[in-house]
Amino acid sequence: MKRTQLISAFLSLAALWGVQTGSAAAQSAANAKPAYLDARCPVEERVEDALARMTLEEKVALCHAQSKFSSAGVPRLGIPEMWMSDGPHGIRAEKLWDEWDDAGWTSDSCTAFPALTCLAATWNPTLADTYGQAVGEEARYRNKAVLLGPGVNIYRTPLNGRNFEYMGEDPFLASAMVVPYIQGVQRNGVAACVKHFAVNDQETDRFNVEVKIDDRTLHEIHLPAFKAAVHDGGVWAVMGSYSIYKGQHCCHNQYLLRDLLKRDWGFDGVVISDWGGTHDTREAALNGLDMEMGSWTNGLTLSWSNAYNEYFLADPFLELLRSKEIDEEIVNDKARRILRLMFRTTMNPDRPYGSFATKEHALIGRKIAQEGIVLLKNQDNLLPLDPKQPRRILVVGENAKKMMTLGGGSSELKVKYEISPLQGIENYFSPASQVTYAEGYSSVPTQNRHALLLEAVDAARKADVVIFVGGLNKNENQDCEGADRRSLNLPYGQDELIGELARVNRNLVAVIISGNAIAMPWVNEVPAIVEAWYGGTEAGNAIASVLAGEVNPSGKLPFTFPVRLEDNPAIALDAYPGDGKQVEYKEGIFVGYRWNDREQIKPLFCFGHGLSYTTFEYGKVTAEGRQMGPDGTITVSVPVKNTGSRAGAEIVQLYVSDLKSSLPRPVKELKGFRKITLQPGQEQMVSFTIDRKALSFYDDTKQDWVAEPGTFEVLVGASACDIRGKAAFELTAR
Amino acid sequence: MKRTQLISAFLSLAALWGVQTGSAAAQSAANAKPAYLDARCPVEERVEDALARMTLEEKVALCHAQSKFSSAGVPRLGIPEMWMSDGPHGIRAEKLWDEWDDAGWTSDSCTAFPALTCLAATWNPTLADTYGQAVGEEARYRNKAVLLGPGVNIYRTPLNGRNFEYMGEDPFLASAMVVPYIQGVQRNGVAACVKHFAVNDQETDRFNVEVKIDDRTLHEIHLPAFKAAVHDGGVWAVMGSYSIYKGQHCCHNQYLLRDLLKRDWGFDGVVISDWGGTHDTREAALNGLDMEMGSWTNGLTLSWSNAYNEYFLADPFLELLRSKEIDEEIVNDKARRILRLMFRTTMNPDRPYGSFATKEHALIGRKIAQEGIVLLKNQDNLLPLDPKQPRRILVVGENAKKMMTLGGGSSELKVKYEISPLQGIENYFSPASQVTYAEGYSSVPTQNRHALLLEAVDAARKADVVIFVGGLNKNENQDCEGADRRSLNLPYGQDELIGELARVNRNLVAVIISGNAIAMPWVNEVPAIVEAWYGGTEAGNAIASVLAGEVNPSGKLPFTFPVRLEDNPAIALDAYPGDGKQVEYKEGIFVGYRWNDREQIKPLFCFGHGLSYTTFEYGKVTAEGRQMGPDGTITVSVPVKNTGSRAGAEIVQLYVSDLKSSLPRPVKELKGFRKITLQPGQEQMVSFTIDRKALSFYDDTKQDWVAEPGTFEVLVGASACDIRGKAAFELTAR
Repeated sequence: MKRTQLISAFLSLAALWGVQTGSAAAQSAANAKPAYLDARCPVEERVEDALARMTLEEKVALCHAQSKFSSAGVPRLGIPEMWMSDGPHGIRAEKLWDEWDDAGWTSDSCTAFPALTCLAATWNPTLADTYGQAVGEEARYRNKAVLLGPGVNIYRTPLNGRNFEYMGEDPFLASAMVVPYIQGVQRNGVAACVKHFAVNDQETDRFNVEVKIDDRTLHEIHLPAFKAAVHDGGVWAVMGSYSIYKGQHCCHNQYLLRDLLKRDWGFDGVVISDWGGTHDTREAALNGLDMEMGSWTNGLTLSWSNAYNEYFLADPFLELLRSKEIDEEIVNDKARRILRLMFRTTMNPDRPYGSFATKEHALIGRKIAQEGIVLLKNQDNLLPLDPKQPRRILVVGENAKKMMTLGGGSSELKVKYEISPLQGIENYFSPASQVTYAEGYSSVPTQNRHALLLEAVDAARKADVVIFVGGLNKNENQDCEGADRRSLNLPYGQDELIGELARVNRNLVAVIISGNAIAMPWVNEVPAIVEAWYGGTEAGNAIASVLAGEVNPSGKLPFTFPVRLEDNPAIALDAYPGDGKQVEYKEGIFVGYRWNDREQIKPLFCFGHGLSYTTFEYGKVTAEGRQMGPDGTITVSVPVKNTGSRAGAEIVQLYVSDLKSSLPRPVKELKGFRKITLQPGQEQMVSFTIDRKALSFYDDTKQDWVAEPGTFEVLVGASACDIRGKAAFELTAR
Repeated sequence: MKRTQLISAFLSLAALWGVQTGSAAAQSAANAKPAYLDARCPVEERVEDALARMTLEEKVALCHAQSKFSSAGVPRLGIPEMWMSDGPHGIRAEKLWDEWDDAGWTSDSCTAFPALTCLAATWNPTLADTYGQAVGEEARYRNKAVLLGPGVNIYRTPLNGRNFEYMGEDPFLASAMVVPYIQGVQRNGVAACVKHFAVNDQETDRFNVEVKIDDRTLHEIHLPAFKAAVHDGGVWAVMGSYSIYKGQHCCHNQYLLRDLLKRDWGFDGVVISDWGGTHDTREAALNGLDMEMGSWTNGLTLSWSNAYNEYFLADPFLELLRSKEIDEEIVNDKARRILRLMFRTTMNPDRPYGSFATKEHALIGRKIAQEGIVLLKNQDNLLPLDPKQPRRILVVGENAKKMMTLGGGSSELKVKYEISPLQGIENYFSPASQVTYAEGYSSVPTQNRHALLLEAVDAARKADVVIFVGGLNKNENQDCEGADRRSLNLPYGQDELIGELARVNRNLVAVIISGNAIAMPWVNEVPAIVEAWYGGTEAGNAIASVLAGEVNPSGKLPFTFPVRLEDNPAIALDAYPGDGKQVEYKEGIFVGYRWNDREQIKPLFCFGHGLSYTTFEYGKVTAEGRQMGPDGTITVSVPVKNTGSRAGAEIVQLYVSDLKSSLPRPVKELKGFRKITLQPGQEQMVSFTIDRKALSFYDDTKQDWVAEPGTFEVLVGASACDIRGKAAFELTAR
């Protein structure tokens, strides 16, 4: 009779009428709704109320994917499914339930914003906020609770295929830019998910490479942007990385997630695995992973729906909870975090409605692209090209036409439109000038490259000006997730082509589309060089507006361009990409300009470098006072004047140098920057106020940040290689 | 220069900075948000504010599909897409963007609620509210703005393939049941969409059949439930039908939509076309269609995305608006209605979050199924079967195992689970009784039906009781959208099988699963007959609970079961299905029991018929007063007593008879009902209060409802054929 009794109990009329009474009561008394559904209740109260109503199975169901980009809610309680979208440059196309293929919607063609390297190159935190706000609006309109970005892995080598998604080589700059991006996104009731936490700095062997890194380097170089995202950005989600660190995958890494992120930093949000980054139930359960996504279970790519139950944080987790081998508080903590994210996003009735693929967003993208473009070289003021002056303009290069929103991996976008460089140049220069095009080189192996070259060079002879548009292109090995670059050099014979073009036409502008540094063996032959990044929807118009001088370029490099690959520390020290199992960060804290400074290697273009169509003169650097108390601050000032003939913006950089310390320190480190716009002749005093945080290093032994009393110098410059003045002061002891 | 100028104007920095200022302002001043985004503003103010911000193109985009089940929002303004789902018995599986195939989600397995015929058979408006509330919760959880149901087309013939989705043959009963269903759905911030407006009463030739019907029949029989949905239910959406009426398709029918629904009834919601029901831009624009869905354009099934722009209410509509051939106020009216629906649904931040596929919903579904089951015959009290008494129970019939949530057309559901009748019987009777099964008949043509019959009959000989479970099955021609039934008889040789079973076993219970009346040539040979409808997720448990006597059946028929097909008026008058072009509703107002009464045809089972395991005695019917003034009311009372030995519910029906009138009237018409639950021996006074509305008929000449002074009778009964008492009164003149 057991079965019958169960059924009978389950279905008793009493229970049913209880249900109905409850339902009727709920109908008549909206005020009496439970706390978790009442937006007037504090979030933590809603979390606890919801949690108290949930079964163990419902809690576990929150902790893993149900499809490629969603996880279950609690259907019984009205807690919605959680939908996520790849970022960070726009909202990815809708995907089929359990496949990477597009779902074929026609309402999901988004705005592509510039790649994060470009945003970093603006050195404009306000624009980062605007970017976050806009991409967050797109996410919100598309009903995404989580935007999978931004990325702030540190630029360790120019070969990393995903550098274009990150914010450069300097932890201070990345921190300053990531915080407003996050705040902008989250203002929409959409969670940003900062990634990839941590030390996921190469695509080679990415799923299982073990990173050997000392604590000091981790804390000084690779973690600050994440910490800023948590402390200053208040980020609601963090994505674990694929790498192995201290013997555990970073998606379930005790030190990184449990001890550091959640305990020391007090992170109250959700740790989401990278897709397929989870490898062990017990570690995932105990070491701080909250939500497992994209797993390959049993070594197979999942292709049947119930396979989601085989996820490490699904049935295997449930079994350990049921058998009490894992305490229920473990899943309670995860569920609380996920519920908290729900109440911050989809269950916050006050969140705005967003907007999607609007002209406003396109213009924001264009503004960012314009401010991020870096004028690397401009010999004899070849640029700008006055669009009113009739010329024969030849545009050369496959990148002048190629859609850069396609390819690159998970950040690929289905865009409403994308203005190519050629279209942009035509928009600005036709019909006053005659704009013609020659492909010059091709990424398609079957093309006859020599013929393309000859054709372009021949056309270049007849042109007044040649605008070469090349670089990388988001193909595999050319700025793309999943595989690193193989060379610092440009692919497809571009170097030879550029050399030939320079030989036949002195008025050559090289526009480089990339998210990485490239070698420029032709640098001395080409008078004008522009780094244009991946500019998104309005890329071509942004480029052309700079070439035409409508916009005065004001971007500066967020990472060093080395002359040769061997000038990069990881390469120089044979510390990349490792032996297939391990990679040791032998360069330690000496990443980027810190390496160049120490080794006195002159780069091709320096960190922080970027020219303008005007010039800026820096006056005397002064420090207010000569001493700084242990809890005090010091203000450093410098007058900056626009000494050219047109308005422009300058990024004034403040570096700090510790003249004597118990541990070796970089020659200087960025600790402040200001981007100011000056009219011709206008002068402005630029001030920076720093405290002991700017003077500190991470002491491995003490496992803490230390600022040692003694003399420090503040160096103010236009780039890391272009210090215009300095001042010294003393940090006094307690 | 035109192009450059345009681009330049479009992209000017001034515009961009304008944008940014606006954005920043919006960020800092949440209080300053525009009216359309401010839920504190009245809906009409929000509508006007949004409309004033929209371009002509954006308005037109609202008026047609963008995919199989969605239409565009206004991405620029944050107005969401509108997603709809077929109903009315549950929320349909997610579909691919532009195909009928399932999208393969695994989170969309819903609760199947009983078919609407079953709901109607409960005669319990409170349960209709509970049903609507629950299915609305499921729609809300799945983020549907519109639930495409309920259906209230009048049961005109027992052959209509979609009768199971409707509420029976009587306009009063359908009205009483549809109103609370709508209110329940819409309480969730989900629009109900009452369908199919109007006269879509057969599936044969459904896309283009022209219905000839007199005004009186339209208003008295076919429209009241729709009018109640609008006036009393406050429904937010109405679906046009495929039929042609007065020379126009009903989806763009001047009389039905513009004159009647919107002008006379004051409907302020959205008229949505049935899928593929739109045929002409000008008619659709001018005659009241607001949203075109599912069109075949140019005679082709759409398979390319831009084809949505070819919809009648897409580019062709836009062109007529641009050329001023159609005034912009026409699209403004449509956009207002659609915006109003948005603010009532997805843009109402106070709407609840719903819930999905819950135990609570399953129990609600079960309760409805239990109350809807009709005990048609119960000779010698064969039922209930005491589950504690050990028996050899043989279950016979394919329907005992068949999933009835599959098939049937657009109301098909992907369910979380469905309890078959056999499972339900096992749940209630095993292991006390030995339950065995024989298929007996099969819908699969390749099966050897004679062998199945012999096997079942052989098994029946050895059983103590035989429960036959048969009927229709939602296959084509067997209760299914798109094609009518071909016969009143049961398919697949069931009649012969039942006859044989009855011959070998006296203890035979026939459980009929159907949404339509069936012929029962074996009615005299089978002692117990149960009409169980399509019961949804808990169908089998509901059936078994009635068979076992846990639940005392209390449903009554919402339509007449005729003895022969020819006893149906449309068939008798050769007024179905028409000649392939037209169908004339020759029966006029004499639909269902109105025909049987007039023609004095004894039905197999009468409208309103349904037995109980107990008995009810009706006392004397009294009318309070002998006269009713023109604006007065009269109250009719009857004591009803449970004269049996167990608790039960009785549906007490009030019919009105106009003894003399200027136009022919039905012998009697349902104008009131009450469902009461009585304990054994308990007596209760049941009262009905009616006014002139209950006495009125629709006068074609006056085009208005008329109640003529004179003598009326009120008849109180247990069915239309079982009048237990009556009283007369006078309606006095003004």
